[in-house]
Amino acid sequence: MDLGPYLTSPSVWIKDPETGMTNCAILRVYVASPTRLVVSFVPTRHTHHYFQKYKAQQRNVPIILAIGHHPAFYIGAQTKLLVDEPAIIGGFIGEPLEVTPSETWGKEIMVPAQAEIVVEAEMSTSELEIEAPFGEYTRYYGRQARKPAAEVKAITRRRDAFYLDVMPGHADHVLLDAPMVEAHLFNRIKSVVPGVLGVHMPVSGTARLHAYVQIRKSNDGEAKTVIATALCSDYHVKHVIVVDEDVDIFDDEQVLWAVATRSQWDKDLVVIPGMMGTSLDPSANGVVTAKGGIDATKPLDPGRFPQRIRIPEAVMSRVKLEDYLPSDMLRQV
Amino acid sequence: MDLGPYLTSPSVWIKDPETGMTNCAILRVYVASPTRLVVSFVPTRHTHHYFQKYKAQQRNVPIILAIGHHPAFYIGAQTKLLVDEPAIIGGFIGEPLEVTPSETWGKEIMVPAQAEIVVEAEMSTSELEIEAPFGEYTRYYGRQARKPAAEVKAITRRRDAFYLDVMPGHADHVLLDAPMVEAHLFNRIKSVVPGVLGVHMPVSGTARLHAYVQIRKSNDGEAKTVIATALCSDYHVKHVIVVDEDVDIFDDEQVLWAVATRSQWDKDLVVIPGMMGTSLDPSANGVVTAKGGIDATKPLDPGRFPQRIRIPEAVMSRVKLEDYLPSDMLRQV
Amino acid sequence: MDLGPYLTSPSVWIKDPETGMTNCAILRVYVASPTRLVVSFVPTRHTHHYFQKYKAQQRNVPIILAIGHHPAFYIGAQTKLLVDEPAIIGGFIGEPLEVTPSETWGKEIMVPAQAEIVVEAEMSTSELEIEAPFGEYTRYYGRQARKPAAEVKAITRRRDAFYLDVMPGHADHVLLDAPMVEAHLFNRIKSVVPGVLGVHMPVSGTARLHAYVQIRKSNDGEAKTVIATALCSDYHVKHVIVVDEDVDIFDDEQVLWAVATRSQWDKDLVVIPGMMGTSLDPSANGVVTAKGGIDATKPLDPGRFPQRIRIPEAVMSRVKLEDYLPSDMLRQV
Amino acid sequence: MDLGPYLTSPSVWIKDPETGMTNCAILRVYVASPTRLVVSFVPTRHTHHYFQKYKAQQRNVPIILAIGHHPAFYIGAQTKLLVDEPAIIGGFIGEPLEVTPSETWGKEIMVPAQAEIVVEAEMSTSELEIEAPFGEYTRYYGRQARKPAAEVKAITRRRDAFYLDVMPGHADHVLLDAPMVEAHLFNRIKSVVPGVLGVHMPVSGTARLHAYVQIRKSNDGEAKTVIATALCSDYHVKHVIVVDEDVDIFDDEQVLWAVATRSQWDKDLVVIPGMMGTSLDPSANGVVTAKGGIDATKPLDPGRFPQRIRIPEAVMSRVKLEDYLPSDMLRQV
Amino acid sequence: MDLGPYLTSPSVWIKDPETGMTNCAILRVYVASPTRLVVSFVPTRHTHHYFQKYKAQQRNVPIILAIGHHPAFYIGAQTKLLVDEPAIIGGFIGEPLEVTPSETWGKEIMVPAQAEIVVEAEMSTSELEIEAPFGEYTRYYGRQARKPAAEVKAITRRRDAFYLDVMPGHADHVLLDAPMVEAHLFNRIKSVVPGVLGVHMPVSGTARLHAYVQIRKSNDGEAKTVIATALCSDYHVKHVIVVDEDVDIFDDEQVLWAVATRSQWDKDLVVIPGMMGTSLDPSANGVVTAKGGIDATKPLDPGRFPQRIRIPEAVMSRVKLEDYLPSDMLRQV
Amino acid sequence: MDLGPYLTSPSVWIKDPETGMTNCAILRVYVASPTRLVVSFVPTRHTHHYFQKYKAQQRNVPIILAIGHHPAFYIGAQTKLLVDEPAIIGGFIGEPLEVTPSETWGKEIMVPAQAEIVVEAEMSTSELEIEAPFGEYTRYYGRQARKPAAEVKAITRRRDAFYLDVMPGHADHVLLDAPMVEAHLFNRIKSVVPGVLGVHMPVSGTARLHAYVQIRKSNDGEAKTVIATALCSDYHVKHVIVVDEDVDIFDDEQVLWAVATRSQWDKDLVVIPGMMGTSLDPSANGVVTAKGGIDATKPLDPGRFPQRIRIPEAVMSRVKLEDYLPSDMLRQV
Repeated sequence: MDLGPYLTSPSVWIKDPETGMTNCAILRVYVASPTRLVVSFVPTRHTHHYFQKYKAQQRNVPIILAIGHHPAFYIGAQTKLLVDEPAIIGGFIGEPLEVTPSETWGKEIMVPAQAEIVVEAEMSTSELEIEAPFGEYTRYYGRQARKPAAEVKAITRRRDAFYLDVMPGHADHVLLDAPMVEAHLFNRIKSVVPGVLGVHMPVSGTARLHAYVQIRKSNDGEAKTVIATALCSDYHVKHVIVVDEDVDIFDDEQVLWAVATRSQWDKDLVVIPGMMGTSLDPSANGVVTAKGGIDATKPLDPGRFPQRIRIPEAVMSRVKLEDYLPSDMLRQV
Repeated sequence: MDLGPYLTSPSVWIKDPETGMTNCAILRVYVASPTRLVVSFVPTRHTHHYFQKYKAQQRNVPIILAIGHHPAFYIGAQTKLLVDEPAIIGGFIGEPLEVTPSETWGKEIMVPAQAEIVVEAEMSTSELEIEAPFGEYTRYYGRQARKPAAEVKAITRRRDAFYLDVMPGHADHVLLDAPMVEAHLFNRIKSVVPGVLGVHMPVSGTARLHAYVQIRKSNDGEAKTVIATALCSDYHVKHVIVVDEDVDIFDDEQVLWAVATRSQWDKDLVVIPGMMGTSLDPSANGVVTAKGGIDATKPLDPGRFPQRIRIPEAVMSRVKLEDYLPSDMLRQV
Repeated sequence: MDLGPYLTSPSVWIKDPETGMTNCAILRVYVASPTRLVVSFVPTRHTHHYFQKYKAQQRNVPIILAIGHHPAFYIGAQTKLLVDEPAIIGGFIGEPLEVTPSETWGKEIMVPAQAEIVVEAEMSTSELEIEAPFGEYTRYYGRQARKPAAEVKAITRRRDAFYLDVMPGHADHVLLDAPMVEAHLFNRIKSVVPGVLGVHMPVSGTARLHAYVQIRKSNDGEAKTVIATALCSDYHVKHVIVVDEDVDIFDDEQVLWAVATRSQWDKDLVVIPGMMGTSLDPSANGVVTAKGGIDATKPLDPGRFPQRIRIPEAVMSRVKLEDYLPSDMLRQV
Repeated sequence: MDLGPYLTSPSVWIKDPETGMTNCAILRVYVASPTRLVVSFVPTRHTHHYFQKYKAQQRNVPIILAIGHHPAFYIGAQTKLLVDEPAIIGGFIGEPLEVTPSETWGKEIMVPAQAEIVVEAEMSTSELEIEAPFGEYTRYYGRQARKPAAEVKAITRRRDAFYLDVMPGHADHVLLDAPMVEAHLFNRIKSVVPGVLGVHMPVSGTARLHAYVQIRKSNDGEAKTVIATALCSDYHVKHVIVVDEDVDIFDDEQVLWAVATRSQWDKDLVVIPGMMGTSLDPSANGVVTAKGGIDATKPLDPGRFPQRIRIPEAVMSRVKLEDYLPSDMLRQV
Repeated sequence: MDLGPYLTSPSVWIKDPETGMTNCAILRVYVASPTRLVVSFVPTRHTHHYFQKYKAQQRNVPIILAIGHHPAFYIGAQTKLLVDEPAIIGGFIGEPLEVTPSETWGKEIMVPAQAEIVVEAEMSTSELEIEAPFGEYTRYYGRQARKPAAEVKAITRRRDAFYLDVMPGHADHVLLDAPMVEAHLFNRIKSVVPGVLGVHMPVSGTARLHAYVQIRKSNDGEAKTVIATALCSDYHVKHVIVVDEDVDIFDDEQVLWAVATRSQWDKDLVVIPGMMGTSLDPSANGVVTAKGGIDATKPLDPGRFPQRIRIPEAVMSRVKLEDYLPSDMLRQV
Repeated sequence: MDLGPYLTSPSVWIKDPETGMTNCAILRVYVASPTRLVVSFVPTRHTHHYFQKYKAQQRNVPIILAIGHHPAFYIGAQTKLLVDEPAIIGGFIGEPLEVTPSETWGKEIMVPAQAEIVVEAEMSTSELEIEAPFGEYTRYYGRQARKPAAEVKAITRRRDAFYLDVMPGHADHVLLDAPMVEAHLFNRIKSVVPGVLGVHMPVSGTARLHAYVQIRKSNDGEAKTVIATALCSDYHVKHVIVVDEDVDIFDDEQVLWAVATRSQWDKDLVVIPGMMGTSLDPSANGVVTAKGGIDATKPLDPGRFPQRIRIPEAVMSRVKLEDYLPSDMLRQV
């Protein structure tokens, strides 16, 4: 079956030619022909930095494409720390990541032994090729651009290998980065508002543009401080909603309910025009964007707010579905 | 089984003592004892208006509580037109609503023949009793208040009658009014922005405080006009989000995605402080509330906006789940 | 006397070629020569709609120009309902409008029998001619445009007929539509703020851009709701001023006095940028305009506001002008 | 005829006991009985300042009430310069103001010889009496307060004297100060925007709270500078509207037309909360008030704005009313 | 020593050819060659006005450049009154300014006798030459422009004359105008807020763009009124900070401390976009600029604010530096 | 000499009774009598935390007051890390901090050997005493409060010991914390805007409320991101000014010059009401405060901004003061 040119997003390994540290990044790869790849290096990221070192040494870049592995392999590869990432990945998996010498360069370049498929390729530092337009995490198509090209040198794979890929702009894509960003925001907010309980980057906001933050408020003014903190801790974050501890930040509906019943937009809404955002947001003006946040927390004084409806535990435990539904319906619940 | 005092929300029928027209409303009824009911009449509603007429005539009020009926019976009873509502209900059901003389007052007061349970009671116009605190559509408990009391005169029911009730503040409660409000907003918006395609009052906004409006924009400025129209057409509506025709207004996630990628809050957000809202919104100051809206539509000029990711039909039709999943997993999808 | 080309604004009758209903509209007509007319059809209006039907049937359009009639004839012709308008006009006059067969088309096209002058003409659906620049209701000259041309077929008139015309941009012009808009706004506002007492579209605001609304306030927040309602109920309305029942909305001076003494612009003024307005407003950006409103009502609590000066009735009735002024001065008062 | 207690507003003369300069002010006088007056001295005004000097000398205050005189007498008395005001008044009348020794104090205190009525009274510096509530220039009743009382010593009057009084809160009252304020604002604005053509304090704004300013604009930004200047040059001025030279500032209707067609409130409206205003404005918070202004001028670039409708002079001169109206109707025009 | 072309800023005298009054202004002069000068006349200033008169008479303009004189000579020359300025200068020096006939035109043109250097030159009214780019008071270079040229006719100087010049954009330059502007602002503010104590145009704000105003507040709202007054009294003034009487307006640090501890920017900050400023402000859009002010005064009610730290006089007087420091360190303090 | 009760601010050492780590903090100590101290423990700080542990163990707290030491001793003691602080201090001094057993508790509690004076005291965990009112870093007096009391057990000192103290509210006081806050802000900003060059907490803003940030801008929008970051990274920071690399942030005058000539407050100023600040700011409402920032950077595009005046190096080096000033004046420069 000839697929024609297509896009794929494997874990791409590249080794720092000076320090020997290996960087792993999920990168968009355009398969221009069965042996020709165009790799989407993003300036300002580590991979690109290493690429420049090879270029300075006038050498081609050995790259490894790992397709299909343990989920923790992918999460671990998304840390943005300047470390030897295969070691980090091991930490996420819970045991050292098994590696093996590459077919092409032997022990000079190691490849992940448990990957379903491993592609070894050699990238030119001088040739750029047009990459087809592609989907971005914002769920829009990006613009065509010229990126470095590579020649496939070897392909190894497991018996009955499955092909695990990322669907650009869909949930599997946007969710990959979310845990790292959530952890980063949580730490930043924690340092100024110790009562922060959780941060969620919902899929509805493409896991990058919206942040929901749950706090146990102990001072008026904390919610606005949380908003400012979240808006500046990651340049993607554009809108922030802060809620109380009784609101589930992993549920859009509950967060929206808090906005509906606990915010007054003349006082509880912050807008900061002219901040630095991401140029992938089509509503932004280049990287300049208006950011904002909504304080959807109750006032501190409990006497000023009614109590939320809750069915008492005693009632809930007394109700048994089997008293009401036939057994074949119950099985589907 | 003695439940002790409890709340229920039947369809309550009351007949205009002057015109003979019958009004049906879903009202909270506090069952103080097996034969004593406290009925939550809301001032400014028709039921209350009729109550005043009985009071002026120094007569007790015959009331009918219908529990359990066809869903269209409930939707039909939520129209706010000043008509003989049993006739309207017939329109929704698709055939005339079957009625039968009451046990207590005979043909003077007719009751719905197909209801699961019918309670006939006589309400005093002079005695008020404390109603227990209860859940409101906002999902908070309201305040205790004194309401009129009634004595049960007769109870009739179908064999194996089921007891259909509304759970205050839960989806079945908040959704009852939504279709009528959506239709009303749609008509109002249609008269100023003919390109309106749909209005949805999402459960996340308690089906009353948030409105999502979908338009096919033909002029800049239409979205802001939609916002103002929705905010003033029903006093409950507090926040409005306007989206393009490609965004599904019945899906919070899609609406939030439009807010994330198609709005700039320094230009696309409207806040009007000091409008008349509902005192059940705990963030409001009495009935005074700040209302707002977000224009999450793209600019009219298509060249200024990237294309949304869509998997081509041809690709989707080529993919067959059975090629990928074992048959027992497929059955659960 | 040869006037040369000139503009006139008669009541123009055109019959729906399919339904037979007749539409009457006051339209600008450019008299290019004694037998050649250029008629200013506005897209989106009924007349234009009928025109398209004739065009589809490849027929010329018979049109009637009625010049000079009872004032109620003009008011009645301004309704925007999709009905047989001569019948409506009769309602305004108080008796059926008398019609008579046309000279050109006989009973196929009827003409108003009591009109001072009736011009019968046949309009081409293919020829467009330049219409001279003309005055708009905003009191500015509009731009030249190409409009359909018609040939005069017959002119009939009463003995000693007078020629009643509308002066573009002057009070007689701007006031023609006002009653219909006032009624429409009144109904819209009434449905959300029952205490509305009156709506006036003052000549000072060209009878379209400004609306004065008088309410008997029963809730704080009603004035802001009135403002939003008026701004979106008609796309022309740009500025709204809301006053109490003691302020005469037909008197600019009283409304301005309310603005002076009953509004604080940091709280009582609403501005909504980016709404859809009219492109005839020269300050607008195409059809996009900033709209606004001023709440010039007193606070609800009467104790918070001083009493307005009023000369007691007893004093007024005691004062007789003839005790103070000579009789010849009195006659001129 | 016994009027009972009443209010009157004569020109009250009081002489500086140290410098001998006489101050004239139109003051509210409460006629508690035929021989007892309560005089409304305003702190911070000259009259009050002199009063304090008499008090320090433990002397009663001789005061003169002049009722009825040439209109220029009243305008002249409204200057707020620290001069011998009878001399100023002469400047306005066009000839020296004729004075004559008082009945009570002889040449020590002179009185206006041409006044219709002159009342001489002696005011205590220690006794305060309740003044009845009264109308203010804002057209509301003020609060009761305690003011100094005086005993009538003598009344002289012309034969057939007429009694000229000011009706508090009506046009004759509010207009008295207007020319002085208009001149002051004009001079202030002239010093920063030389193209100012006129300033009017309209009766609609109680001749104090609203200012209309006409300018011939030569730089963008001048209108906003005019607004700021007018708002701070007199503490009463609350709202300012700036118009072009083709708009008549003495006609509310024309100014409102400029607001309707030449202002966009998101850009052309200025609001400054928290300025010092007058406590007589019932919407203010004590003396603290939000002030504002509207730039209703066209953009400088004439190409960006349509031309205003004007009937050509040639046409106007050709039209003769007598060609259209019967002679008896013409007389009433 | 040949300096090549250079800029200098002498006091330039020019005599009104009609009235004979002499105007003195510190003007930038470009010394194109030892005998050729290019003089920077600013339109709208008096010198330019006189220049036009000579041009109308088709005469060359005699000009005097005075270099080096008593400091009061310079201050006096900065008044902007339309008077014979040498006379004014005498007032500042404290004795009549000594003048003497010029070498070139004798008694027709007098020159300052005590100037260190006097250059007499004749300016063409028809020739313009490029002036080199130069530093402005804003501390930026301005744009090149064409200005009138003059031929040197004579140079006279004192024995051992020193050459006093102004360094464009440095403190000696920006401070020259400050006293006159401060006095003007002080008077303007005094007329609306009598409690004003001082006005300072700090060097940090180029002595023109920033104004610090010290007031003894007696009414809430006065600070905002001061801001509006300062912003419109001189078109250069862009930002105003108002402080209490305990804050030294001649010390940036104290004013900033007041901003830090006595202002809340949501209430105490005023921004007025779109005012007329100076085109030399590089952040402005031509002459249009946003101006603003900060009310950094305490609330009137002393109970609402803590007391400022002050070391008691008794303590200060008890501390003697000589008890703590050795005598040679003391000498340097 | 009897000083009576007085305040002093030594370095107070307290040892964690569980971990043995020692915390050093500069605390206000009220010397109630020669042997009785009242120590100002701040809740939420480490010292207070240890205090609670002693209290739980029902033991008195041994405390050490060190008066007079190397400046690095003080800077080092201001870190807010949870470590054994004497070790940290050694890092700042550049060699291990020399300690010696205490007089009272021997090796159980070590004291700084090189301190000028060491006071050993035992603090009750149950007795609280009124502390006199005192000066805060904001330069206002704080409120009286009740704090724990301690009994002096021993005092040791160096021969000719000097007494080094901090003057509350004066520069030596406010500057102590500044380096740590500056470093913290710098790191936070660096992580989002890599081009940050420096952060300064000026004395004018009490070294806590104002932050000046210098950046080399590489994207529009960075300055606003810097503002948000600084405002939320430390809860004291209230106002932030961002400047370009050519502006010296250690010089108020230069920063104010940048505000004057590089900011437009309608676009470049951010205000966020309702954030969490410090209750020591007397303008705040408890801990709730409005924060703000000014972007005083030039636009990125150099062509849009004029060049700053600079005297060329060549000129500066050519100028020798000794050519202009007599030698005795030169010595004082």
